[in-house]
Amino acid sequence: MNAFEIAGLLAATLTTGSFVPQVLHTLQRRSADDISSLWLVLFGAGIALWFVYGLWLNSLPIILANAVTFLLLMVIAWIKFAPRPAVREIA
Amino acid sequence: MNAFEIAGLLAATLTTGSFVPQVLHTLQRRSADDISSLWLVLFGAGIALWFVYGLWLNSLPIILANAVTFLLLMVIAWIKFAPRPAVREIA
Repeated sequence: MNAFEIAGLLAATLTTGSFVPQVLHTLQRRSADDISSLWLVLFGAGIALWFVYGLWLNSLPIILANAVTFLLLMVIAWIKFAPRPAVREIA
Repeated sequence: MNAFEIAGLLAATLTTGSFVPQVLHTLQRRSADDISSLWLVLFGAGIALWFVYGLWLNSLPIILANAVTFLLLMVIAWIKFAPRPAVREIA
């Protein structure tokens, strides 16, 4: 494995792994208002297509990286789009 | 070009293009508090390495998609990390 192949593997690890702190951040804040809905939808669709492309290439790194990224994105989408429970006033 | 190659090109277009609405969203809100700093740093580093990997593969789509994504990320980082002007009180 040469330096560039290592760069590629590290790239995949970083771009996928970066979503772990993002998901923790989103779960902690219970808010994703600063994250664009259109970004979530387009990026999610793109990641799903990268997964399909990886299946065709039979590339385990592309398949795996995009499967994990997609699952992490779903957590962000859940926080962003799930209806929030109404704040109940103390009578 | 077969259906899977088209899926790959569409994937690259979507994952890169998704950052256009995100940047507009961030510029409009002037806030990126819901975006994790660690996500920005790790994802940015990953995108830079994808760019290097693309140079090695001599793959124009990988080079171009990641160069554009990196520039768009820099706008988000600028909003997130630049010091905000203090709100001046009316005397």
